[in-house]
Amino acid sequence: MSKGVISKDEDYSQWFNDLIIKSDMAEYSPVRGCMIIKPYGYSIWEKIQGALDKMFKDTGHVNAYFPLLIPKSFFSKEASHVEGFAKECAVVTHYRLKNDGTGQIVVDEEAKLEEELIIRPTSETIIWNTYRGWIQSYRDLPILVNQWANVMRWEMRTRLFLRTSEFLWQEGHTAHATAQEAIAETEQMLEVYADFAENFMALPVVRGRKTANERFAGALDTYCIEALMQDGKALQAGTSHFLGQNFAKAFDVKFTNKENVQDYVWATSWGVSTRLIGALIMSHSDDAGLVLPPKLAPIQVVVVPIYKHQEELDNITTFVNSLTKELRAKNISIKFDNRDTHRPGAKFAEYELKGVPLRVAIGSRDMQNGTVELARRDTKTKETVQQEGLGAKIEALLEEIQTNIYQKAFKFREENTVEVDTYEEFKRMLDEQPGFISAHWDGTSETEQKIKDETKATIRCIPLNNKQEEGKCILTGNPSTQRVLFARAY
Amino acid sequence: MSKGVISKDEDYSQWFNDLIIKSDMAEYSPVRGCMIIKPYGYSIWEKIQGALDKMFKDTGHVNAYFPLLIPKSFFSKEASHVEGFAKECAVVTHYRLKNDGTGQIVVDEEAKLEEELIIRPTSETIIWNTYRGWIQSYRDLPILVNQWANVMRWEMRTRLFLRTSEFLWQEGHTAHATAQEAIAETEQMLEVYADFAENFMALPVVRGRKTANERFAGALDTYCIEALMQDGKALQAGTSHFLGQNFAKAFDVKFTNKENVQDYVWATSWGVSTRLIGALIMSHSDDAGLVLPPKLAPIQVVVVPIYKHQEELDNITTFVNSLTKELRAKNISIKFDNRDTHRPGAKFAEYELKGVPLRVAIGSRDMQNGTVELARRDTKTKETVQQEGLGAKIEALLEEIQTNIYQKAFKFREENTVEVDTYEEFKRMLDEQPGFISAHWDGTSETEQKIKDETKATIRCIPLNNKQEEGKCILTGNPSTQRVLFARAY
Repeated sequence: MSKGVISKDEDYSQWFNDLIIKSDMAEYSPVRGCMIIKPYGYSIWEKIQGALDKMFKDTGHVNAYFPLLIPKSFFSKEASHVEGFAKECAVVTHYRLKNDGTGQIVVDEEAKLEEELIIRPTSETIIWNTYRGWIQSYRDLPILVNQWANVMRWEMRTRLFLRTSEFLWQEGHTAHATAQEAIAETEQMLEVYADFAENFMALPVVRGRKTANERFAGALDTYCIEALMQDGKALQAGTSHFLGQNFAKAFDVKFTNKENVQDYVWATSWGVSTRLIGALIMSHSDDAGLVLPPKLAPIQVVVVPIYKHQEELDNITTFVNSLTKELRAKNISIKFDNRDTHRPGAKFAEYELKGVPLRVAIGSRDMQNGTVELARRDTKTKETVQQEGLGAKIEALLEEIQTNIYQKAFKFREENTVEVDTYEEFKRMLDEQPGFISAHWDGTSETEQKIKDETKATIRCIPLNNKQEEGKCILTGNPSTQRVLFARAY
Repeated sequence: MSKGVISKDEDYSQWFNDLIIKSDMAEYSPVRGCMIIKPYGYSIWEKIQGALDKMFKDTGHVNAYFPLLIPKSFFSKEASHVEGFAKECAVVTHYRLKNDGTGQIVVDEEAKLEEELIIRPTSETIIWNTYRGWIQSYRDLPILVNQWANVMRWEMRTRLFLRTSEFLWQEGHTAHATAQEAIAETEQMLEVYADFAENFMALPVVRGRKTANERFAGALDTYCIEALMQDGKALQAGTSHFLGQNFAKAFDVKFTNKENVQDYVWATSWGVSTRLIGALIMSHSDDAGLVLPPKLAPIQVVVVPIYKHQEELDNITTFVNSLTKELRAKNISIKFDNRDTHRPGAKFAEYELKGVPLRVAIGSRDMQNGTVELARRDTKTKETVQQEGLGAKIEALLEEIQTNIYQKAFKFREENTVEVDTYEEFKRMLDEQPGFISAHWDGTSETEQKIKDETKATIRCIPLNNKQEEGKCILTGNPSTQRVLFARAY
């Protein structure tokens, strides 16, 4: 157990928080529920952004930027949307402060806005109001726009990265001529998210659809990817919504189709956020610190020299410079930690805490023998290897680590996904071995709500390509045609 | 003159606005003073971000993210800072809306914040409050952090890109152990900005320091780069501030120095914003549309096929595919516009309006002759060139265009920078041939203010490495040791 980090078996929630603070990823700010993303945490976000942005562009999307503030009246135009967000939004009412004469800085009541402005909790309303001016004919469609932005939802119970009042995200907002095209877009973006989660985050996810209860406020259908954390709780890692014509109707966005008939435009929206960093930490890390998959690690390889005399360090430095050149050419990031203010042991602990996938230690004997010591963060194994061919060895090992982290998480999920057929068994599993529970449900919101009230478990999703089978709802015994995935969730 | 764009000689301000709207860069939003940056405009911002971010990282900086909202009390801790920003800030007072029972969505008065929050107009206060926890000893210094973010300043008179209530920017905030080190950082970042302006934006800039009147609220010294627009008005394109110990004192940020003595930390901050896009447009464009320097052009080369029959297009396509491959390997962006819904002439006009640096047109005769027609946006010249070696030719031409655009702007600035020695001449030049005016000033704020009140001209900067010479203030006749740069400004 690393200094200052509690064991995850002892207190998972505290472990998660400690890990973030100690590894210098983020901290709380004096502003309620808002966090400060420190450079180490932010560099992971930059990696996430870089990879996703490329995937969005490869699928034909472009970026744009819409205003932070949304007039209250816009916000209210889509009924279920305002219902979903009104209870947690930051409201701007004034546009000036003043000195009250006694030296106190106060709100200037003469600078009251005619209409209050809401800090965007999501941008469907301002964007669809804008699209009205962009779309006249089917020739203007599709519009495939994404935005990287900050959003604000006033949360009462917050947790670093997982649930903060302000968070960073991307929100795609697309406009289409037909429902089929919009649904295909919704599904495509879900697959982009799943691909990213599995191949970059090393996080296996279940692709599925939300029940009506759990849908996005204003959507006809919400697709999601769901992952299982090490404490057996589920985490929604990304959502992609088919919005039908709801926002087009609310903002009067019509187009002339190929048959020269006016129709409302079809919409999708989809987003992932800094929450992904929370998922990344929760799913792979251990009591010694973060375990980062190489593809998202800000530092992939760290080199720690072990020496007594300057000339030993000079020798090691010459070797490391050449290794650095070789690795950079392979697009592998390497850090040479030659600080003389810290001992090797302290450095080892620091990079373990920070989840650096590979550590290279080189001492004088290594230099004589033409070897180095290689330590893997994921398996905590060490080996002595030849300096010759080290670059290629590191490259191969990073790929192996990426795969291994994924497989470990996959195995964990498999071991913690069970089918149950009775409500007793359902409740027992939730308490004794929490995880994904695949069970029959009668398809009603009432049953879903009752199960939630009684057990805190929710239907995470109806998996895509779900097997159809006859069964009986675990709560009501009513007939069911498929199992759905339950879990307690973040 | 392009359709819908007024001539810049007729109405420069309207020309600027028309150009932005017609070239699909941006538009106003329904939220006062806030703009929507459309995909074409945003892709220029992405280019700017990419280049600057690399320059920041190459000089040792890392990115982080701090909260959007700042408690009012923080904001007030540095006296001149709050003075500078209080009059134009958006204030959050509530955190919930509710249905008032009649179906109206209203602010929930029960959800009033104990302390109002300000949407950041700049982040010195929240960042220095945070640095207090990060800095104990000289070993924790320097801190070299940058943030890419949106900020809000409630502007009464707005103009797309140049002055909007919300804008995108980066703000660097560094902390140092000594004044010298902080000053060196301030100067280094000014040089980064100047380098970027000249080498990417093709915009010659004067490096200088602001007078006390024009300094950033809370700075001891403000360095700036100033550029001259085509209407003879100056535009401040970037600023770098030496903040001394002002914010460290306001937020009690002390450290133990090498001599084991406690001292306040020294600070800098520096920023550029989406205003740069305004400068880019204003300095190079003409009545036919944008003129973009190749290094920041979202599309560097566009290919327009001219054909009647499908097999002609097939032939052209084969050639363009091979050219595309060659250019992409050189990191040159190319777009093949094979839309059959638009005629070549319409496409020509569109890319001229959008400022694409090079246009390649290929017809059937070209295919027979092994030639293409190459048209430069900057000089509006065309030439017929061989298909063989076209990739290398394009690469060389793009460099030439980049240089030419810079030189044209440089020549314009030289021709519009004059030395004057009397106030009469000063006022005459401002009216008859506006530009930079280099003149003697007695060094007092009163004189500066009087000149501003009478002529609307301000001291843009005291150029770095300014020649020292005896002279008399144009207004008061009092002695002066150097000329300073005046202009009317955006």
